[in-house]
Amino acid sequence: MKRILNDPVDYVVEMIGGLIAAHPNHFCRIPSTTRGLKHVDSPVNGKVGIVTGGGSGHLPLFLGYVGPGLLDAVAIGNVFSSPPAEEIMLAAKSVDSGNGVFFLFGNYAGDVMNFDMAAEMLQSMGIQSSTSVVHDDVASSPREERENRRGVAGLLFAYKVAGAKAASMASLEEVKAAADKAIHNTRSVGVALSPCTIPEVGRPSFELGEDEMELGMGIHGEPGIERTALGTADEIASAMMGKLLADIELDERDEVAVLVNGLGATPLEELYILFRKVGSTLADRRIRINRAFLGEYATSMEMAGASISVLKLDPELKKLLNAPYYSPLLLQPPKECPYVE
Amino acid sequence: MKRILNDPVDYVVEMIGGLIAAHPNHFCRIPSTTRGLKHVDSPVNGKVGIVTGGGSGHLPLFLGYVGPGLLDAVAIGNVFSSPPAEEIMLAAKSVDSGNGVFFLFGNYAGDVMNFDMAAEMLQSMGIQSSTSVVHDDVASSPREERENRRGVAGLLFAYKVAGAKAASMASLEEVKAAADKAIHNTRSVGVALSPCTIPEVGRPSFELGEDEMELGMGIHGEPGIERTALGTADEIASAMMGKLLADIELDERDEVAVLVNGLGATPLEELYILFRKVGSTLADRRIRINRAFLGEYATSMEMAGASISVLKLDPELKKLLNAPYYSPLLLQPPKECPYVE
Repeated sequence: MKRILNDPVDYVVEMIGGLIAAHPNHFCRIPSTTRGLKHVDSPVNGKVGIVTGGGSGHLPLFLGYVGPGLLDAVAIGNVFSSPPAEEIMLAAKSVDSGNGVFFLFGNYAGDVMNFDMAAEMLQSMGIQSSTSVVHDDVASSPREERENRRGVAGLLFAYKVAGAKAASMASLEEVKAAADKAIHNTRSVGVALSPCTIPEVGRPSFELGEDEMELGMGIHGEPGIERTALGTADEIASAMMGKLLADIELDERDEVAVLVNGLGATPLEELYILFRKVGSTLADRRIRINRAFLGEYATSMEMAGASISVLKLDPELKKLLNAPYYSPLLLQPPKECPYVE
Repeated sequence: MKRILNDPVDYVVEMIGGLIAAHPNHFCRIPSTTRGLKHVDSPVNGKVGIVTGGGSGHLPLFLGYVGPGLLDAVAIGNVFSSPPAEEIMLAAKSVDSGNGVFFLFGNYAGDVMNFDMAAEMLQSMGIQSSTSVVHDDVASSPREERENRRGVAGLLFAYKVAGAKAASMASLEEVKAAADKAIHNTRSVGVALSPCTIPEVGRPSFELGEDEMELGMGIHGEPGIERTALGTADEIASAMMGKLLADIELDERDEVAVLVNGLGATPLEELYILFRKVGSTLADRRIRINRAFLGEYATSMEMAGASISVLKLDPELKKLLNAPYYSPLLLQPPKECPYVE
């Protein structure tokens, strides 16, 4: 794997340097942190501050979700590594306006531990916080153990819903309740076609044969459900939609948001080819798509593959999902799809 | 190279099918074409229609530039192949509101020929058109033969400026004049780290050694300026900026827009690392960056590499560049950078 890179040791710090140089009216550094960024206008008076974090190597996740209608601050770690608790605490402190801080992140052991420690530090400083953990990856644990599942691209929906709720000046409890509903209603599944390489390691994180794919593989190369021969786009979409629809109850006329996410190297053309079958599968079941998000929302550097996420909507979630948001690292929001009976 | 694909023969048609299914409130098919799309609200009364086209395999180029403040219609061909003249003509006809059609596309022989033929057909039908060809790639011909250069990611700036001018209800002559100024003031250069594979061919379009890169390589794998050992990010940025700054006169306090574009497989992290040095190179010369665009704006499927484009601004170009635009395939517009003396 060839990269545009200086010293691999400086990968994260230089990436942050570039981000701030490119978008000085959007991001600023959080004092005393090395890898903490916040939105230039945060904290916003009266608003709950939302903070996330996780490993590097997933852009636009996590830093790219900072912005109006989204998150206030992010602490990141090395590639595929959790940020330290101290930096999470400083990120939270920097965006607390006295209305409390909401931690929202994906379910990985290191992140859970460090965010918990940060919450304890905040408590001792008199800053109120609450936490929700996103666990949308159906491949990583059976349905009965949903809370053990990993967090993947479905984070988009949780961020979007929580961000819009906080922007409406809702209380910490209300923001958490909205996020929890989004988490409860989100399912994702991924397929990997090729590995990625951690810059400091220099060799692929796993191996896949020339004609193989792995259904359900995680965004760090965690094992999935099954390794099979590479299928056609329609076969891949059917297998993925089968896993999703078996895991969440969707009835005729239910409305969903759909995300077809590229893992890094997979061209946008292929995501649209995949979406054809995703859309027709839902249409066959008379499930309505309210909005379709396609593009790179959570990546694994140069991994080839895709994930599909579904969010089951109710009137509140629909309103929050469709509220405005801004980040220069995110695609322009898709328009609402016309309702076809 | 592994792809999410059905029959390679159906690559383009299925991609378009997915695009329309995902964004039915944005794109619609142009009657009697197989690969022509227009914006649902085009033609707009009183507005010049802008039409582009080119080969497939470059998303978000070309289809992704259809939208308010941008283009009205696009005709695309097979992967890396020109669209037929007939489809270009039909695309133009479908968005003419009686104020004429402006053709704006990249300089490739097949496209030039087919757009010329389309313009002749339109003329015989009494529809007025004019044409500008984007030739921003400094690597493809010497400065004295600028008009022979290829069109690459600098198309973003030409589309953006022409689209904003047309949205202001300017005349066909005025739209062309604004686009020509943007073309005159734009320079790009690319670097390729790995090839891509045309689905119907099934093998890489060129080969690059494990430690090689090619400076100035085109977005279809056309030969560049030199093939060298893979440099560091800072070395790559310096070499690229050297080529750009030698080709356009930029003085202290001049203002530019910059685009650091990913060719497909290169992660966003690496574009930001590259931008660090791009930004500091310009700052050293006291050249001001008005806006920095980073992400995928013109790709070569899964090619690894990047391009840098610079647009020299004047007050009119700045105003047009910063006007609003919308497409679900494009990133949210970057904010204006604060002016630092």
